[in-house]
Amino acid sequence: MSLPRTRKVPFGGDYNPEQWPEEVWKQDYRLFDTARIDTVTLGVFTWARTQPAPDVYDFSTLDRIVERAGVEGRQVCLATGTGAHPAWLARSSPEVTRVDFEGRRHRYGQRHNSCPSSPVFRRLSAELARRIAARYADHPAVVGWHVGNEYGGACYCELCAAGFRDWLRARYGTLAALNTAWYTTFWSHTFTDWEEIEPPSALTEHWRGPNHTAFQGITLDYLRFMSDAMLANFVDEKAAIRQASDLPVTTNLMGMYRPIDYHRWADHLDFVSWDNYPPDDRSPGWMALAHDLMRGLKAGQPFWLMEQTPSYTASRDVNPLKRPGVMRLWSWQAVAHGADAVLFFQMRASRGACEKYHGAVIGHAGRDDTRVFREVAALGAELDRLGGATLGARTPARVALLFDWDSWWALEISDGPSRLVRYQQVVHAYYRALWDAGVDVDVLPVTADLTGYDVVVAPALHLLKGDLPQRLEQVADRGGSVLTTFLSGRVDEDDQAFLMDVPGPLGALTGIRVDEWDAREPEVVNPVRLTVGDTELEVGSRLIFELVIPQGAEVVGRYAADFYAGTPAVTRNSFGAGHGWYVAAGLDQAGVNWVVRRVLERHDLLGPYADVPDLESTVRVAPDGTRLRFLLNHRAEPVEVDADRSGVDLLTGDRITDGLPVRLDAYGVRVIREERAAG
Amino acid sequence: MSLPRTRKVPFGGDYNPEQWPEEVWKQDYRLFDTARIDTVTLGVFTWARTQPAPDVYDFSTLDRIVERAGVEGRQVCLATGTGAHPAWLARSSPEVTRVDFEGRRHRYGQRHNSCPSSPVFRRLSAELARRIAARYADHPAVVGWHVGNEYGGACYCELCAAGFRDWLRARYGTLAALNTAWYTTFWSHTFTDWEEIEPPSALTEHWRGPNHTAFQGITLDYLRFMSDAMLANFVDEKAAIRQASDLPVTTNLMGMYRPIDYHRWADHLDFVSWDNYPPDDRSPGWMALAHDLMRGLKAGQPFWLMEQTPSYTASRDVNPLKRPGVMRLWSWQAVAHGADAVLFFQMRASRGACEKYHGAVIGHAGRDDTRVFREVAALGAELDRLGGATLGARTPARVALLFDWDSWWALEISDGPSRLVRYQQVVHAYYRALWDAGVDVDVLPVTADLTGYDVVVAPALHLLKGDLPQRLEQVADRGGSVLTTFLSGRVDEDDQAFLMDVPGPLGALTGIRVDEWDAREPEVVNPVRLTVGDTELEVGSRLIFELVIPQGAEVVGRYAADFYAGTPAVTRNSFGAGHGWYVAAGLDQAGVNWVVRRVLERHDLLGPYADVPDLESTVRVAPDGTRLRFLLNHRAEPVEVDADRSGVDLLTGDRITDGLPVRLDAYGVRVIREERAAG
Amino acid sequence: MSLPRTRKVPFGGDYNPEQWPEEVWKQDYRLFDTARIDTVTLGVFTWARTQPAPDVYDFSTLDRIVERAGVEGRQVCLATGTGAHPAWLARSSPEVTRVDFEGRRHRYGQRHNSCPSSPVFRRLSAELARRIAARYADHPAVVGWHVGNEYGGACYCELCAAGFRDWLRARYGTLAALNTAWYTTFWSHTFTDWEEIEPPSALTEHWRGPNHTAFQGITLDYLRFMSDAMLANFVDEKAAIRQASDLPVTTNLMGMYRPIDYHRWADHLDFVSWDNYPPDDRSPGWMALAHDLMRGLKAGQPFWLMEQTPSYTASRDVNPLKRPGVMRLWSWQAVAHGADAVLFFQMRASRGACEKYHGAVIGHAGRDDTRVFREVAALGAELDRLGGATLGARTPARVALLFDWDSWWALEISDGPSRLVRYQQVVHAYYRALWDAGVDVDVLPVTADLTGYDVVVAPALHLLKGDLPQRLEQVADRGGSVLTTFLSGRVDEDDQAFLMDVPGPLGALTGIRVDEWDAREPEVVNPVRLTVGDTELEVGSRLIFELVIPQGAEVVGRYAADFYAGTPAVTRNSFGAGHGWYVAAGLDQAGVNWVVRRVLERHDLLGPYADVPDLESTVRVAPDGTRLRFLLNHRAEPVEVDADRSGVDLLTGDRITDGLPVRLDAYGVRVIREERAAG
Repeated sequence: MSLPRTRKVPFGGDYNPEQWPEEVWKQDYRLFDTARIDTVTLGVFTWARTQPAPDVYDFSTLDRIVERAGVEGRQVCLATGTGAHPAWLARSSPEVTRVDFEGRRHRYGQRHNSCPSSPVFRRLSAELARRIAARYADHPAVVGWHVGNEYGGACYCELCAAGFRDWLRARYGTLAALNTAWYTTFWSHTFTDWEEIEPPSALTEHWRGPNHTAFQGITLDYLRFMSDAMLANFVDEKAAIRQASDLPVTTNLMGMYRPIDYHRWADHLDFVSWDNYPPDDRSPGWMALAHDLMRGLKAGQPFWLMEQTPSYTASRDVNPLKRPGVMRLWSWQAVAHGADAVLFFQMRASRGACEKYHGAVIGHAGRDDTRVFREVAALGAELDRLGGATLGARTPARVALLFDWDSWWALEISDGPSRLVRYQQVVHAYYRALWDAGVDVDVLPVTADLTGYDVVVAPALHLLKGDLPQRLEQVADRGGSVLTTFLSGRVDEDDQAFLMDVPGPLGALTGIRVDEWDAREPEVVNPVRLTVGDTELEVGSRLIFELVIPQGAEVVGRYAADFYAGTPAVTRNSFGAGHGWYVAAGLDQAGVNWVVRRVLERHDLLGPYADVPDLESTVRVAPDGTRLRFLLNHRAEPVEVDADRSGVDLLTGDRITDGLPVRLDAYGVRVIREERAAG
Repeated sequence: MSLPRTRKVPFGGDYNPEQWPEEVWKQDYRLFDTARIDTVTLGVFTWARTQPAPDVYDFSTLDRIVERAGVEGRQVCLATGTGAHPAWLARSSPEVTRVDFEGRRHRYGQRHNSCPSSPVFRRLSAELARRIAARYADHPAVVGWHVGNEYGGACYCELCAAGFRDWLRARYGTLAALNTAWYTTFWSHTFTDWEEIEPPSALTEHWRGPNHTAFQGITLDYLRFMSDAMLANFVDEKAAIRQASDLPVTTNLMGMYRPIDYHRWADHLDFVSWDNYPPDDRSPGWMALAHDLMRGLKAGQPFWLMEQTPSYTASRDVNPLKRPGVMRLWSWQAVAHGADAVLFFQMRASRGACEKYHGAVIGHAGRDDTRVFREVAALGAELDRLGGATLGARTPARVALLFDWDSWWALEISDGPSRLVRYQQVVHAYYRALWDAGVDVDVLPVTADLTGYDVVVAPALHLLKGDLPQRLEQVADRGGSVLTTFLSGRVDEDDQAFLMDVPGPLGALTGIRVDEWDAREPEVVNPVRLTVGDTELEVGSRLIFELVIPQGAEVVGRYAADFYAGTPAVTRNSFGAGHGWYVAAGLDQAGVNWVVRRVLERHDLLGPYADVPDLESTVRVAPDGTRLRFLLNHRAEPVEVDADRSGVDLLTGDRITDGLPVRLDAYGVRVIREERAAG
Repeated sequence: MSLPRTRKVPFGGDYNPEQWPEEVWKQDYRLFDTARIDTVTLGVFTWARTQPAPDVYDFSTLDRIVERAGVEGRQVCLATGTGAHPAWLARSSPEVTRVDFEGRRHRYGQRHNSCPSSPVFRRLSAELARRIAARYADHPAVVGWHVGNEYGGACYCELCAAGFRDWLRARYGTLAALNTAWYTTFWSHTFTDWEEIEPPSALTEHWRGPNHTAFQGITLDYLRFMSDAMLANFVDEKAAIRQASDLPVTTNLMGMYRPIDYHRWADHLDFVSWDNYPPDDRSPGWMALAHDLMRGLKAGQPFWLMEQTPSYTASRDVNPLKRPGVMRLWSWQAVAHGADAVLFFQMRASRGACEKYHGAVIGHAGRDDTRVFREVAALGAELDRLGGATLGARTPARVALLFDWDSWWALEISDGPSRLVRYQQVVHAYYRALWDAGVDVDVLPVTADLTGYDVVVAPALHLLKGDLPQRLEQVADRGGSVLTTFLSGRVDEDDQAFLMDVPGPLGALTGIRVDEWDAREPEVVNPVRLTVGDTELEVGSRLIFELVIPQGAEVVGRYAADFYAGTPAVTRNSFGAGHGWYVAAGLDQAGVNWVVRRVLERHDLLGPYADVPDLESTVRVAPDGTRLRFLLNHRAEPVEVDADRSGVDLLTGDRITDGLPVRLDAYGVRVIREERAAG
């Protein structure tokens, strides 16, 4: 099962006509025509309307909404509507709302408020999904199903506690095994009855919030359990849909979202879709990483960009405006990284409640002459011009970056060495270096097949599980390069330290041992001198400084200060026909870039515009072998480069000639169909 | 009903002899004599003493206290004593304590702890007020009644939930109307039974505290309800007092205090009194604004300054000392803005508990030779000299500034565009500009009669209700100037966006439309170039930047940076015989000053000393037409200016001659009875 | 009863073989041999193992552990194992877990989680202690008993509420006395039934956390009660041990730990032991203060350093590494200040849970060639060389610094004048000045006998109790110097302000009165000019500025800015044959140093190396009168000084000759047995 079948990249987004009188619907569709909007996501928050009481289902409004979309010739991504439960349900079944980390039972309100373990929620949400699928499965406008909405958060209620115990029984079999895994001899914590086990919270194992726990094992397992519990909610609804429909099913994910291990979810999704709300407007690499992570969930299968704002968000403290051209640029960036749909939240701005100031294609005044509407319409026209050129196209990456929720969790719930080391930041620094170098990257789970890659980057791979060490050794053995960093190889799947030298099972590959480590406040910088052949650079390092004793590895970088001045900060170990690299310190971005480029150079993987700052370059290869080169200028100034290959810019029809200049406007985009197929 | 009848400005304050043996009372009155203290507020915290058990009332202590005051010839502002309930009440009726925003039932303690919806609290507090009024109504010393103390805070208990539902039924009639007003279709929030509605709290609609809500409509209504619920407590007691006494009734307000909409309270107070504890000692404009707001509550009627510290507060992290002369200066500032009483908290410092380090007229050592005591006594002598000159005097303002609790709430609970825009700061910036210009200002509710004003300033008027837009248009139409700013005209009374261009119903008056808006972190400054005729200035703007498309308005200021450089930041629209001004950006104080002075110039309203920094100038006109000019030097250095009119300084007897120099000492004050009546 | 009898300074620490298979135990002991580890603390967290169910005791594991230690010839400090209760107990008796300050009942988890008032906890913990003592009392390896672990925290449950009421009845006898002490007339707080009294918490008297209370009296008493309640837990177990054993009993204290008033505990401990985890690695004076405080608990009796990390902690945000030499230096610093044992947490790093990254003598790889292990082993060898030279040695201090938990609490729970004044920082500034001057100091409770001291320093002695003022006057009267500071002498034992001039009963001694006080944000600095004779210095002062009117005192320092420029900031009063000093402002460290050195000079108490920065010098006098001079170089560079007396360095055998150079390496240590006995 794959993506919905469409003839071009779907364009449109979340649409809530149930908030408006029907005369507004007509105005909306005329504006949709102008903007070439062909796809609407409907019904995300309609549970209270479709089921206004326990025993009453009323589809009259949704019927009219779907009918209108069909009459208007749009494609519909139809939601099951279970993203927020109705008020009557919270009143009749108070256990349907969540208990928070502080142990407080919430009452009705907000949105992410359904306990994933609640039997009544599970029954009613699946039943609603079943009815909606049965009712609309054969409607010709419907092309796919959207289950729930942005699954996330956590619950700590008694039902979840019981579910956790069941999950633990299934995982460990016996209490003895559980006690061993959780290392409960420490602090006299031995459990002698399953019922003694409580969800780890502010009232049990935690202090100073969700990352500070006395027992990492319990907390790590609860994170896994909670991700699984919500997956079960998704699976409930998907199974209910399958009773009536074979159309693709998705839910909108959120990129690098810590609470849910999307790698555990991926097999259950027919296709991936996600909502792109980057932390700020200076993060093209951050978004690229998230796109690649989403694409990697299903082994490179294209995904849908399910939400983005056309202009501003509303929920931040400060909600800056996307500058002119930026919405277009970011939309194309999504496509460049594998998106086969470009959708917005939201089509029409709501009048009230917390998202009334969130950007929308159609504002409160209903105009078609706002800057935002004009840019949306221009993009719609471009996507029309593009047609189906990208559909199903794959990214031909030879570099893999490993992303691992278990390591993320284990690293950030650890006491020591440093709370200031954040998994996403470390991963992003290495991804950013690859992005700067203009190389296509697959962001993959640690279980992925690595045989196709020349380079594997594994930053902060704190927790090692399964046969990954061996598979990484195989990469190096056959001539590839593996790069890992400080705080890798520390613990096993139970978060227990390996009883061997750090970096544990990665020691042979990296040819080092870490004798001890220093951690410092962010203002402490230890300069690192990097040298490979004639290439030299002095960079800074911060936060964490492991003290390395080479066991065969060559020293590439050395600390320049403190009592460990002169000792290794970066090493490269020959392993088989390849290399195992180790970065022992929190290098600054310049340092990470330098190391990563040394690795890429060996495999001749630097992109054609690696020396042009903020010019992003990616490739997608269509099913027929056509190579599409995306060039994205993230600067507010134009840039000109010499073309690397001849081709045609699909957005303008411009002919591009190998070796001749190609100009990109400020925030400009080129989608070049290259003439020669990729090697 | 107006203020208590006094022959001069009452001087004194909160006095708690119940904390002391009677021999101390005698010492106190001798010190009062020295300081010419003629008025004491008694009994604010005496509930536990007057009603030591459910069925026992014991007035013996209060009798002696009031008796002593009478014998000593002082005026008494007598409290009902319900500012804090007794311990036995919390134990016998646990529902009398509040449930906080986090959903936690408090137990006995602190002070603001009575649930306003508690029937037993309402019954017993009114009964106590009734008994006190009945007992002391005819005592000749008593001149007025003081109900409760500093009403504030909020409760989220089940009784308040029930009260809220009643309040909502009265407001909306039907659930359908409520669902429409709250926009509950959003996020599937439709209420199908009144009982489903919960107070909006950390356990329901909120996240990250009281300002972050999923549904602004619910939260806004709860703010209104809670203000009304406490008003009902006040009204309970006032009605009980009225059974025995016709003396004026007040409660001590707190200036710009967000939880209580004092405009909804004003009609129920016989006279306004308030407690002036400014945030720091660099805020003369802030205090002036608060005084004018308090005076505006009852259409310009003078008020009582019920509390101020003679020296320091205790509850702040850092409690700086009022420099020598500052207590006097601030006392006169209150009078300059309409105060007809100058009272302190507190007469004698308590020995224990949380206010033992709060400043007092009489310190722990009982001395009359402390600096503070000497300054208090000197002020007492001055007020004696002033006599009744100011009593009943009015401020002849031709400028109105609109202050609106609904807009305050709506702006600050809004998701988007920027949490950094704070209502008080915006209002203060415009008030401060008026204050700098030395113009008298009435700070008024949006329902006030605007026909008497030449200039109406309405900063951040986020929420528009009633016929205000039309009344503002009338001001301009007849030749006046109306000035409004960014984030005005956004929502209606239900916090729903107007389905029209921003600034909604203010569009015609301002002659613009706002197409979109940018919000930025505080370190981002966009320079704005201001030009009217030959007057030019470049200033900074911050936080919020609306993008304006003129619809007839003239451009007065333009952004100088970012992609919207050159577009309007300040506009002036001719409307009838007058103007509608719009400030689209968060101008710095220099920018606000510039704009405000351009407006005032047109109406020839700049004060006589507008160019002398920190020299405050106000006017009060006594009932007999006598004009009193107050000059207040907020600098620690002397200042000399040329007199604007001839007159006599009532504090010194100095003769002031038009055109000749007038000197003010550091922190100096002049109260000049001007010779000619005002035009 | 005194310390365990040992032939040399015990060396070793916490050891948890129960976490490991027995083959690891053997490896451990071979490594212990290498490092000359002779002492292990066993069984601290073994409750769940020794009592796996309510009616089951199983000592088989502990038997083997103790047996092994004995066979291996080690000394055992045996724990009762009650530092953390088992999971089954929390489930069968939920009241055994604590209710936190927010009113939330915790469930099983973490460590400090036993309600001190819980009858079942008290019964079972004492029973366990009784059984362990009975079983192992006669084991020859056992040298002492370790009760619980790091007592601390607080509980606010109903059982504690009842216990608090009993404690109050015992303290006050009548409610009338309690109401007077707590000043409940303020805010109508009079209690009319004991049952109305609740623990002061976030749900009753507090706001913004444990330091912000409406009634200081209640909060102060709860702090005293809670300290006493935990002491009762200790006493329970100690009494149970005494049924079977006369060996010395201790528990590991935590230095300057606010929740527990160790002065109230001291009499109940046979000997003091404590865990040294300084806040950072720039705090030699901080650690020295804590050591001296611990030594002062039992009138100078030596103590055990029960825990320190050999390398890093794990629970901090950032856990820096102890530089090479620092662990040794700090170990010797402990000995220099009176430690007669040097013990670590921990012997072997745990594999899992929150301390797996806490430093250990033996790391996860079990190596004997890590830097840390090598340094531990080197220290072991040094201690072997030292033998019993220090055992029982005393510090011959002529300077006393008063440390008072009541003042600490009262100062920091006070509303006003400044929350920024922190007791520990003030005390540390004065201690630091003494430390810099190289003088031996006893840190003592206010009840200590002061007759043996020339100088008594009492910083921030906010609360005065008993006859302390008289005893301080006696010190001065007989020619000594007493120094006190701002915020001293403010309140009596009930936290009620003295009804006299500040500094209350210290006024006669200091010869001043404080008329008022200013508090400012930390960026405000008021320069102070200090002058005694020809010695002058200008220093800064911050945070608090009392305005002093001399009543006989000589002015030593004057403010140089603000309206109180020229008024006294430091005074010295002749009193009898001595002096009473008063420092009215928050002087910077240079200012404190200057004042303290003026005081010391008068008594000829400056240490021999007072002018050598960071060179610490202390003296211990062995029972036979031998003087041991400790020199500790806290710098990362070597230092050379001229010897003050001849002697022999016990660590190296080097002969030291009076007047000739003595060199100390970076972080170097000398322990010099001096030739002449001390005067």
